[in-house]
Amino acid sequence: MSTLASYKEHLQEIGKLESALALLQWDQRTYLPRKGHPVRSEVIGKLSKMAFELSIADELGEYLDKLEGQEGLTEIERASVRVVGKAYRRSKAIPPEFYERFAIAASQAESAWEEAKDKSDFSIFQPHLEKMVDFARRFAEYYGYEESPYDALIEEYEPGMTSRELRSVIEPLRRELVPFIKRLTEDGTRPSNEFMRGTFPEAMQRELSLLVLESVGYDFDAGRLDPTVHPFTISTGPADVRVTTRFLPNDILSGLFSSMHEGGHALYDQGIAPELRWSGLDEGASYGIHESQSRLWENLIGRSRPFWKYFQPVIAGVVPQLATVSVEDLYRAANIVSPSLIRVEADEVTYNLHIMLRFELEEGLINGKTKVEDLPELWRDAMGRYLGVTPEDDAHGVLQDVHWSSGLFGYFPSYMLGNLYGAQIFATLRDDMPDLDSKTAHGDFDDLLAWLHDKVHRFGKMYEPKQLVERITGKQPDSSYFVSYIKDKYTDIYDL
Amino acid sequence: MSTLASYKEHLQEIGKLESALALLQWDQRTYLPRKGHPVRSEVIGKLSKMAFELSIADELGEYLDKLEGQEGLTEIERASVRVVGKAYRRSKAIPPEFYERFAIAASQAESAWEEAKDKSDFSIFQPHLEKMVDFARRFAEYYGYEESPYDALIEEYEPGMTSRELRSVIEPLRRELVPFIKRLTEDGTRPSNEFMRGTFPEAMQRELSLLVLESVGYDFDAGRLDPTVHPFTISTGPADVRVTTRFLPNDILSGLFSSMHEGGHALYDQGIAPELRWSGLDEGASYGIHESQSRLWENLIGRSRPFWKYFQPVIAGVVPQLATVSVEDLYRAANIVSPSLIRVEADEVTYNLHIMLRFELEEGLINGKTKVEDLPELWRDAMGRYLGVTPEDDAHGVLQDVHWSSGLFGYFPSYMLGNLYGAQIFATLRDDMPDLDSKTAHGDFDDLLAWLHDKVHRFGKMYEPKQLVERITGKQPDSSYFVSYIKDKYTDIYDL
Repeated sequence: MSTLASYKEHLQEIGKLESALALLQWDQRTYLPRKGHPVRSEVIGKLSKMAFELSIADELGEYLDKLEGQEGLTEIERASVRVVGKAYRRSKAIPPEFYERFAIAASQAESAWEEAKDKSDFSIFQPHLEKMVDFARRFAEYYGYEESPYDALIEEYEPGMTSRELRSVIEPLRRELVPFIKRLTEDGTRPSNEFMRGTFPEAMQRELSLLVLESVGYDFDAGRLDPTVHPFTISTGPADVRVTTRFLPNDILSGLFSSMHEGGHALYDQGIAPELRWSGLDEGASYGIHESQSRLWENLIGRSRPFWKYFQPVIAGVVPQLATVSVEDLYRAANIVSPSLIRVEADEVTYNLHIMLRFELEEGLINGKTKVEDLPELWRDAMGRYLGVTPEDDAHGVLQDVHWSSGLFGYFPSYMLGNLYGAQIFATLRDDMPDLDSKTAHGDFDDLLAWLHDKVHRFGKMYEPKQLVERITGKQPDSSYFVSYIKDKYTDIYDL
Repeated sequence: MSTLASYKEHLQEIGKLESALALLQWDQRTYLPRKGHPVRSEVIGKLSKMAFELSIADELGEYLDKLEGQEGLTEIERASVRVVGKAYRRSKAIPPEFYERFAIAASQAESAWEEAKDKSDFSIFQPHLEKMVDFARRFAEYYGYEESPYDALIEEYEPGMTSRELRSVIEPLRRELVPFIKRLTEDGTRPSNEFMRGTFPEAMQRELSLLVLESVGYDFDAGRLDPTVHPFTISTGPADVRVTTRFLPNDILSGLFSSMHEGGHALYDQGIAPELRWSGLDEGASYGIHESQSRLWENLIGRSRPFWKYFQPVIAGVVPQLATVSVEDLYRAANIVSPSLIRVEADEVTYNLHIMLRFELEEGLINGKTKVEDLPELWRDAMGRYLGVTPEDDAHGVLQDVHWSSGLFGYFPSYMLGNLYGAQIFATLRDDMPDLDSKTAHGDFDDLLAWLHDKVHRFGKMYEPKQLVERITGKQPDSSYFVSYIKDKYTDIYDL
């Protein structure tokens, strides 16, 4: 067999194990019976180990060495060798026994975090978090970096991004958003959502989610919608991309937007070109680009006035109590801004400030400028400055997210980048599609989806996120699109 | 690591792959989106190959060699070495290239069978079936046997069983059943099931199945019930044993008994002792013993008069049209005997004759006494003699089952043995539990389940089926228990 054929077969083997793992995880988070969890964890652990061992196998290194200099590869093959090679070298840089110690410490840190959060007692978590920070700093040294050790960690989630660039994106965002939020809450007229109060049966909410997913072009022959606790999207393959959502009995918009958000992720995965299958390129370009697609559908479309023109009769037909509510009232009720303590409940305006705060703290931790013991106080202080609210306890402050306890540093910025990429891509889309609003108002999303497919989805991981954004928009990532979008929209809604 | 520890770790690895495979297959047959099937087949193929390679790995052979003579093993460890060793030697007996040719031919034969069945044209299938018979005969030679090559094939499904013993069980069964069925249909009074006509929503049928599974002691914290096309039960582990069922809109009893049947399989799997996990013993003793448990719950309990005393108010509460039907009428309607052409639709009286016919034909094929080209005529002839009905075309005759096209010879007898084992075990149970009927009539199945757990379930594959039947009943497998049960029951129902 040629090196190229052996290489592809090797990737297929990893891909098939990962497909099985995706299903095992989907089931674990949807339908697995309670008592089945211990064995499932062992099975997932075993298959993950098998996949990881293949991903650092010496023969893969040999294939990569040969292919990196080989002539006559297709563009996809070259991109595959580049992306797989990068991941291979990163994994190989970590000594297995170090990784094992990290995995054990992370597992202990997660348990400690759970207890600390339950008791709202940071001191329980503090020594574990110190260890996690120490591990993260050592990971960064193993991976290597040019300017900041934090860069070596972001690389995992947002290839090619650096803390310097992040800061240059964040600075104008903070400068604009912080005072704007202050104006909104102090001078703005908050829309009413009184008419949204009530109890909404799960079957009704499910129907609404099915309707919206169908109308945006999600392919139910290549996916499905199931309920879960923490919504996620997962692919067992290009033609099996599953959406999960959570229906809150007293909040019909929560489940609807959760479905649109996950639907946005799913449209991306359903749209990746079949030729990329099992090449190492058959996933999103980065966490941030993936999030740009979910946020685009959830917020830029789903929370837009044209969308509610289309969706008002739909929701009126499904939810009796909303039968007579106007488009404008529905649109406004879907766009209430509330500076609050908890990131996962934040609206699209305040969300990025939650992320900035985390970025600044974790960057400080990794660079050694911030001490773990000071985090609770630093958190409270930043919340006050950014959002004007201060947590009364650490459970609603520094202890609210699981990420750090699992050793995930450098992950948070993707959430923010998703919003920024989304707004920037959307601005180009508007230029390319002058009738976007009118089509949206008619529930016709074909052209929009085709555009996203053509510009974003089909390329999978072939381009790094910055490259991709530049290909699409002609510009480097820039937060001004998001700022303009937010200011225009909420100045109108809040009658500023 | 000691040999024993290495051996156990090796079995764990196989067990974990098989757990993943079970979930992949469950999903394939329940919730997998249509377009996801091609990739799923590839993933299942890959993981099956990995598990198979582990099951014939040279190091496993070395562990077995060492452990077979080793002192100080526990009873479970000894049984594990015996059962795993036997399977290892069988698998090793087959040259891989022969197996590969077989797998390809079987895949082609299955397609040909589908087409042949659709067109009711045996000639399309005949050459493929001839190949399958030839492969089966060569498998038998590779496996080895003492008296009949067919014995080498039954061994796969019913360890320790031979065609000689099967014939000695079948002969009295045929002698008694054939004339009894004739009497039933000619002289008996067929019960009415007019009141069962109607259309029953799936939600109503599902509720009924959930109620019956809960009442028999199926643990929903270690399992679940989902709809499918061809009902099956599958375990991803001892605490995740899933039941599937099929609800026919116009036949409420079909889905109910399908759930009880699969529930019987599931109670077995849920009851296997946790110590047997991943020892090669953590499954049923044989296909026949497994079927004894499903048939026991479906027929010996589910189609009994005491059960309907308990279940009449339950079904009356769920199915309005049955609210006023008496226990006796429900019981009789659940026990209608109809000699018919199709095995999978057969009642408990005629079912075994469908199996006998298949056993005789396939034994002849393997022994070279029967030619494939003569099958359609032999089939028609036997149906006429046994059941008094004759198929008008081969789709409803010799082409109805998929088994032979997949190379499954020696499998059919397990269906019959299940009925016989079930009746024999039930006779002992009755002796041990004089208040069985009264408890059943009160929907109290705790003692019954505890008895089955103690006598059958917990042992998994530790004993061969004949050994197990003898441990439980004190006797070798014997068809007279089944014959007495059938004659007593239907003489009463049909007023003979």
